[in-house]
Amino acid sequence: MYGIASMNITGDFFTYTGFRVTNGTLPWPRRNLIAIKANMEAFPALNGQSVSYTKLVFPSECVNPPHTHPRAAELLFVLNGALSVGFVDTAGKLYTQDLSAGDMFVFPKGLVHYQYNLGQSPAIALSAFGSAAPGTVNVPASVFGTGIDNVVLAKSFKTDFWTVQKLKAALTPPPK
Amino acid sequence: MYGIASMNITGDFFTYTGFRVTNGTLPWPRRNLIAIKANMEAFPALNGQSVSYTKLVFPSECVNPPHTHPRAAELLFVLNGALSVGFVDTAGKLYTQDLSAGDMFVFPKGLVHYQYNLGQSPAIALSAFGSAAPGTVNVPASVFGTGIDNVVLAKSFKTDFWTVQKLKAALTPPPK
Amino acid sequence: MYGIASMNITGDFFTYTGFRVTNGTLPWPRRNLIAIKANMEAFPALNGQSVSYTKLVFPSECVNPPHTHPRAAELLFVLNGALSVGFVDTAGKLYTQDLSAGDMFVFPKGLVHYQYNLGQSPAIALSAFGSAAPGTVNVPASVFGTGIDNVVLAKSFKTDFWTVQKLKAALTPPPK
Amino acid sequence: MYGIASMNITGDFFTYTGFRVTNGTLPWPRRNLIAIKANMEAFPALNGQSVSYTKLVFPSECVNPPHTHPRAAELLFVLNGALSVGFVDTAGKLYTQDLSAGDMFVFPKGLVHYQYNLGQSPAIALSAFGSAAPGTVNVPASVFGTGIDNVVLAKSFKTDFWTVQKLKAALTPPPK
Amino acid sequence: MYGIASMNITGDFFTYTGFRVTNGTLPWPRRNLIAIKANMEAFPALNGQSVSYTKLVFPSECVNPPHTHPRAAELLFVLNGALSVGFVDTAGKLYTQDLSAGDMFVFPKGLVHYQYNLGQSPAIALSAFGSAAPGTVNVPASVFGTGIDNVVLAKSFKTDFWTVQKLKAALTPPPK
Amino acid sequence: MYGIASMNITGDFFTYTGFRVTNGTLPWPRRNLIAIKANMEAFPALNGQSVSYTKLVFPSECVNPPHTHPRAAELLFVLNGALSVGFVDTAGKLYTQDLSAGDMFVFPKGLVHYQYNLGQSPAIALSAFGSAAPGTVNVPASVFGTGIDNVVLAKSFKTDFWTVQKLKAALTPPPK
Repeated sequence: MYGIASMNITGDFFTYTGFRVTNGTLPWPRRNLIAIKANMEAFPALNGQSVSYTKLVFPSECVNPPHTHPRAAELLFVLNGALSVGFVDTAGKLYTQDLSAGDMFVFPKGLVHYQYNLGQSPAIALSAFGSAAPGTVNVPASVFGTGIDNVVLAKSFKTDFWTVQKLKAALTPPPK
Repeated sequence: MYGIASMNITGDFFTYTGFRVTNGTLPWPRRNLIAIKANMEAFPALNGQSVSYTKLVFPSECVNPPHTHPRAAELLFVLNGALSVGFVDTAGKLYTQDLSAGDMFVFPKGLVHYQYNLGQSPAIALSAFGSAAPGTVNVPASVFGTGIDNVVLAKSFKTDFWTVQKLKAALTPPPK
Repeated sequence: MYGIASMNITGDFFTYTGFRVTNGTLPWPRRNLIAIKANMEAFPALNGQSVSYTKLVFPSECVNPPHTHPRAAELLFVLNGALSVGFVDTAGKLYTQDLSAGDMFVFPKGLVHYQYNLGQSPAIALSAFGSAAPGTVNVPASVFGTGIDNVVLAKSFKTDFWTVQKLKAALTPPPK
Repeated sequence: MYGIASMNITGDFFTYTGFRVTNGTLPWPRRNLIAIKANMEAFPALNGQSVSYTKLVFPSECVNPPHTHPRAAELLFVLNGALSVGFVDTAGKLYTQDLSAGDMFVFPKGLVHYQYNLGQSPAIALSAFGSAAPGTVNVPASVFGTGIDNVVLAKSFKTDFWTVQKLKAALTPPPK
Repeated sequence: MYGIASMNITGDFFTYTGFRVTNGTLPWPRRNLIAIKANMEAFPALNGQSVSYTKLVFPSECVNPPHTHPRAAELLFVLNGALSVGFVDTAGKLYTQDLSAGDMFVFPKGLVHYQYNLGQSPAIALSAFGSAAPGTVNVPASVFGTGIDNVVLAKSFKTDFWTVQKLKAALTPPPK
Repeated sequence: MYGIASMNITGDFFTYTGFRVTNGTLPWPRRNLIAIKANMEAFPALNGQSVSYTKLVFPSECVNPPHTHPRAAELLFVLNGALSVGFVDTAGKLYTQDLSAGDMFVFPKGLVHYQYNLGQSPAIALSAFGSAAPGTVNVPASVFGTGIDNVVLAKSFKTDFWTVQKLKAALTPPPK
């Protein structure tokens, strides 16, 4: 807080309204996950405060693919709808849960996890992170969408080139 | 995550349902703040994860008195209703904001802050903390409700004994 | 210590003489606490060293009002005179002690605490902090001297507007 | 180091010889990666020292599949042979390098990375970690070998059930 | 502070009076440094508070030999008398200062430093550390008083065996 | 990893080849220790990654004199030859070991330690540190090569001026 008083800073600096956009105005139906991040980049007042939020809106049958956050645990709270969630620990054990609105689940630091909206109506969750910059590593996109050599992937996934190329075709982002 | 796989632990260990209690079943009208904490004590899976939640339910005209959290910043998200909030930095400057549902405000680490529901309907907020054990120091109760000597308080607040005793009478918890 | 050798830095950079001012030359009698801080701002060599000092000079009957240090514990050593001290833990329990010259007391991180010189002669203390920038939140000044809304304060302290306004009048600093 | 002197501890406690096993006595040819960890679990003297080693022996054409270390960066040093390595940052960019004996490469904290021995002779590497317990999340095994629901995986990898089941069959460890 | 309120703990737990012993009652004249430590071991309330004190009493012409503190910087305050102090940075540059009563000097973390009372009267200093367990590595005693091989020492100090043995004889503690 | 993708950075940034220089091309015989550091200064990609390496090449009968690393433990792995090593804990106890190629030894944070190649052939070691900037304090050079006052050194090492001056003559670097 050094020097804040001497700058022209007001309560607005400590306020974030970027989550309002999902308050009912989205053009439904839609299929893709919406993830709005209130992290240090979007909300600079979080710098040094070791906390941030992400709002997740899941259309029906939408999956948030397996991913990790390199710098924080995630504490997910279900605002609306229902979610099936899971994570895998470093010993290779899967932990799953079916969550209803009002429930909370913690994904420990750095482990692979996913969320899935099995239901017919949208699900909305608020996730808190113990870092202002938790980061996200999307597993399918990182592994099959970034140009890693086919031999490396075929050997890693114990599969054939044809399968690797099929997965790459599906997961590589189109050129901009 | 050492050894979790070898214990009889399931996804339930990572799940917290203690916030369901406020999903509509509270006997309204009521006057006092309800604060339900999903911290390390209530939800042991948070141990080592550096994140926790508190759910705050404010009846109409209810104030959460000036307080500090010794071990974390607070990132408050308004779920329902509206809240007027403020904090004071170490240079003695007050920052305030009027928040609507969907808005977020960060109270920096260790600073005195409050929330107030000016409205006629209840307000509900979810606060995330960058610690699994943020702690709370309630200022009025700590100062006037714990037996600090009258002379110390009168001098500190630059007031008379009569005022100190009046505040103590109001803020000292009844004997159990 | 990167590059210090290549700069024109001598032992003077690591020396602080700002506490000499209280070595007997103060115009007594006086009534207010003198607090001289050897923190990172006053003594830049402390940057990154996680330690700092404050020298406290208490005239007779002087109180250091309830306050917190957001970023460090305080380890107070009584150099001269006697002090009555106390702090309140997060469970609302008050811990007090009467200290003589040569005694030491630790105020744990982030908790509300105060010191009081009951005696007829000045008391002098040296406080060490486990941070180069511990910060100070003066409770009476933060709460009643910064313009927090009267309604918030009346409800928080369970008192009336008249009492709030009286405390505000006493504790609001005069305009500069 | 509290109390070490008072226990019956000698220099042996601070010594680890578990890497000798790979000094030339392995039954070649073989196909699988050998990873010997000198972490806190194998070498208790590392407790609190924030550093550990893993020795990696790659037979010809062997891949260390995409994985992350939740708690540390990895600094890999090639002792013998050659390795092709890569990692993906959180923005989805792939960084690759071909390393010869004597070269070093850093895989930043928490990011997905792999190593591959393209050569015809074995490659040996020593990896240092800035944690005594860096942990490892093997991506193919975590995602396809732990029982995550087929629907979640098919949607995440934008593929069909048949491909998911084929990958699961290849990557699920046999029951013990 | 978890649970302190539920234990039979009073303000005495947070008080340390071990420094009173040097308040004038020592049998002067004497020649050796007196160092009384208020660290976590002597004063358990410091556990987790990241701060501690040492009181140093220097008879005339007494030296505190070159030493390091592995876990903290030292902030020395001269209470009485005068001290000549110095430290060496990692680039091999010596920083020195002559301190009078009321002066302060910071010895940065982990660097070799010493203090010397040149004067004819005793000097007393209070040193604060940014750790509850800073530790001390006395250089002469560690190097010449612990049985390190003569060859290692002769080569390290670029000297002969006779000099090494003379230093060992002077610095090795007598058997208990 | 903020913004790396937007800069013109490739895998080369994460690669360090500075250790190749010792791959057989040094003009033997020689007498002095060669220490090549892959720390943050030499290899900027280590910034923030909390890990670094030093390669140590010991000619026959060469000693790495007693020294400390202020900011990290050292995990030494013997690549070739043999080394006798030791460290002294804060209680003044010496721990020693004779290491062969393939062995590992941990020198705990901040303690005085040394290595010695007793053998007739060169020894090579790789040391990992749990910091990107561990720092090194060479004890003989810091104490006798930086100009510390003769009186301080004579008293500290309980010896005479003649011995101090002899050691200073041997250990003071020649003027540049």
